[in-house]
Amino acid sequence: MEQARIGVTGLAVMGRNLARNFARHGHAVALHNRTAARTRELVEQFGDEGTFIPTETAEDFVAALERPRKLVVMVKAGAPTDAVIEEFAPLLEPGDMIIDGGNAHFLDTRRREADLRRRGLLFVGTGVSGGEEGALNGPSIMPGGSAEAYASLGPLLEDIAATVDGTPCCTHVGADGAGHFVKMVHNGIEYADMQLIAESYDLLRHAVGLEPAEIAEVFRTWNTGRLESYLIEITAEILDHADPETGQPFVDVVLDRAEQKGTGRWTVQSALDLGVPVAGIAEAVFARSVSGHTGLRAAAAGLPGPRPNSADASAPGLADAIEKALYASKIVAYAQGFHQIEAGAAEYGWEVDAGAMATIWRGGCIIRARFLDRIRAAYAADPHLPTLLTDEHFAQALGDAQDAWRSVVAAAARAGIPAPGFSSALAYYDALRAGRLPAALTQAQRDFFGAHTYRRTDRDGSYHTLWGGDRSEVTA
Amino acid sequence: MEQARIGVTGLAVMGRNLARNFARHGHAVALHNRTAARTRELVEQFGDEGTFIPTETAEDFVAALERPRKLVVMVKAGAPTDAVIEEFAPLLEPGDMIIDGGNAHFLDTRRREADLRRRGLLFVGTGVSGGEEGALNGPSIMPGGSAEAYASLGPLLEDIAATVDGTPCCTHVGADGAGHFVKMVHNGIEYADMQLIAESYDLLRHAVGLEPAEIAEVFRTWNTGRLESYLIEITAEILDHADPETGQPFVDVVLDRAEQKGTGRWTVQSALDLGVPVAGIAEAVFARSVSGHTGLRAAAAGLPGPRPNSADASAPGLADAIEKALYASKIVAYAQGFHQIEAGAAEYGWEVDAGAMATIWRGGCIIRARFLDRIRAAYAADPHLPTLLTDEHFAQALGDAQDAWRSVVAAAARAGIPAPGFSSALAYYDALRAGRLPAALTQAQRDFFGAHTYRRTDRDGSYHTLWGGDRSEVTA
Repeated sequence: MEQARIGVTGLAVMGRNLARNFARHGHAVALHNRTAARTRELVEQFGDEGTFIPTETAEDFVAALERPRKLVVMVKAGAPTDAVIEEFAPLLEPGDMIIDGGNAHFLDTRRREADLRRRGLLFVGTGVSGGEEGALNGPSIMPGGSAEAYASLGPLLEDIAATVDGTPCCTHVGADGAGHFVKMVHNGIEYADMQLIAESYDLLRHAVGLEPAEIAEVFRTWNTGRLESYLIEITAEILDHADPETGQPFVDVVLDRAEQKGTGRWTVQSALDLGVPVAGIAEAVFARSVSGHTGLRAAAAGLPGPRPNSADASAPGLADAIEKALYASKIVAYAQGFHQIEAGAAEYGWEVDAGAMATIWRGGCIIRARFLDRIRAAYAADPHLPTLLTDEHFAQALGDAQDAWRSVVAAAARAGIPAPGFSSALAYYDALRAGRLPAALTQAQRDFFGAHTYRRTDRDGSYHTLWGGDRSEVTA
Repeated sequence: MEQARIGVTGLAVMGRNLARNFARHGHAVALHNRTAARTRELVEQFGDEGTFIPTETAEDFVAALERPRKLVVMVKAGAPTDAVIEEFAPLLEPGDMIIDGGNAHFLDTRRREADLRRRGLLFVGTGVSGGEEGALNGPSIMPGGSAEAYASLGPLLEDIAATVDGTPCCTHVGADGAGHFVKMVHNGIEYADMQLIAESYDLLRHAVGLEPAEIAEVFRTWNTGRLESYLIEITAEILDHADPETGQPFVDVVLDRAEQKGTGRWTVQSALDLGVPVAGIAEAVFARSVSGHTGLRAAAAGLPGPRPNSADASAPGLADAIEKALYASKIVAYAQGFHQIEAGAAEYGWEVDAGAMATIWRGGCIIRARFLDRIRAAYAADPHLPTLLTDEHFAQALGDAQDAWRSVVAAAARAGIPAPGFSSALAYYDALRAGRLPAALTQAQRDFFGAHTYRRTDRDGSYHTLWGGDRSEVTA
């Protein structure tokens, strides 16, 4: 009886498509699902795409796999993942491997990896990006776990990943939870990217005064330049789409409530733990959250805005300025995300190659973009780049963009159009480059009310001023 | 032998000062500390302030207390708190009470309260604000726990709390972790408040062009009006202070790195869990974090800024506009914090009286301000106010301020002065009042790349467009 190179348990759409992707690449795939009907359905519908070995029991599934066994778990994050791991782990032998391709929190992945390692098993938490379509035709894959695990699993994953310029969008990210961590930050960046596009659209619509179809044309033009990306491309598609029923621009019939599944939130929560400022990602998460508070929005709908045309909004060249603001803000969003990856690697003991992350995001995933080649080049030129902002290309682009960027933030404020992504990104840029920050006052306040001490600009040491006394300074 | 009304274990500065505060109010206080030297020291130094009953062993400490016993634990949050609870709980009898006056995370407080309740003991997690000085002379106190616990503990706490207009700055916040939760949000608001003051200072210094002593005068003037508050008062004191050693403005010799102890971070992480947009607090936390990344700042120091004087910064009236921007942004910061309190109460099953929170913050704590009377009045007028922004007074203030607020955000952007707090607050205001948000585009993108579906403006239901097909719409 033929044995399978790999097995997939959990055959909802993501699992099913991954299984088909393996089969299409010539790898025999064992199939397992809690309800066997779904397994049979897959074989009936797609059995001619390759070699599937359907199984019904956990024991049969395990028996169908070549040693060392590779089980891909595609179930809901959290308790269901733990349950499936506990179902299979006792049936496995030393050296066998469980691959979690779901959206686990990286701290859960760390816990599971350590637990299974103690039991002699390999555990690979793997970020898989690109949704249903990517899973089937080539996702961006971010596997964590040990180098040993990657040595045997990697070639299979690289086979099914998207490729760009012949390079697979899959590489070993780092130990234990590194893959899920990087996938999480990737999603956070995606939130920021989408928010910046939303603000660009809003300004083109309400400050420049264009109609959706005209804005689609603007995005189409942008998509031929440095902003070329999947998200810009689909934005043009969406804005050009008319609702079949009403004939209205489609974007006008969609309720303006953006939902979220939680990885953006996780990104910000992790960044706070790591002490990494990711305000651009946070503003994007909060912007979605604001949009969903319909009761609050209804109550606040009557609050006064600027007088019409009080803005310098319709100034000539605003559309071009928005392109520059978008590009500059996008650099900031990625700089914040890569800062978080670097800090996470340092905190959790991973060796993550930042340039390699940019490389594997070039295809398969939602944020795929020409831009990522620039990031790859930046880290190739200097693997220890302190921030993307100071890479030669990006610094030049920011310098070229900054006047326009400032005008756009000013125009949005004047016109009453919320642009938290643009303005937060600009504030980050201005704060990082500032010679002096008013944080000195903040720290002085902390010393005043809580004796938290301060450092001085002119010598080392910690000091406290006797604010309640003669205001002399004492060494802390 | 006299028994104590209350006992304090953990006699570092906060515990010592709380103990003295109880004693000064005529309550006999039992004292306990891991190292007895500190206990003896307290009695030697301050024994004449009231009745102290020093004890050395846990058993003696417990024996020194009137039934039902009240033990105030003032040790480090986390494991040390658990250790002290486990030291004393076995010595207590049903109905006795442990009060945690440290900076516990509210989820830990919920866990401890449930655990001790099962063991027949009362547990009161209590926020205590006002630092060392407040602990001694009257803090703002935010006790959680059961109503039964508050009935016997409350009068003691109200005795030692700050008072404003004869009202103690202490009230029963709500069950289990409600006190520590509200204290946490209070601290988050404090971060935002301080950040807005820092931005005001920075703009007065570098856009208006005033010297620190002149800015002190501006803050002193502001402190006679609607911004009257402890933080504005000490800002003036700090800006007026000259470094005794160099004669320079003190604020210029303080290193511009603002530190943090973590409650701001907790506030944002909790808000993300609750789905409450608290971008103003997040920007404040991140601004401190940016200030501490000295390596990044050094690397980015050469990035280009605006041409000098390219800003409309030194426009006449900018200082007055900054006062308006500060007031408006402050309203937003508090609106976000109170939204979080309301959401936390709903999530965790507490009945929190928002107006009462404003009332007990009027004295004793760092954010004490005339402003809080306005918030109290707002909730008195409408206990179900959907957001502070729509209270009549605040809506009027926002309307009056908005032109100036927009100018300040625009001026900061043009001048290259980071103002993440002001701009984030304005974006929140403009987003909440917007008739339509570009979140419609974001949700349409999510439907395009992930089939996440969307709702329509014109009828109920969830829909999906067949983007890869004929682009017709299907019911999801």
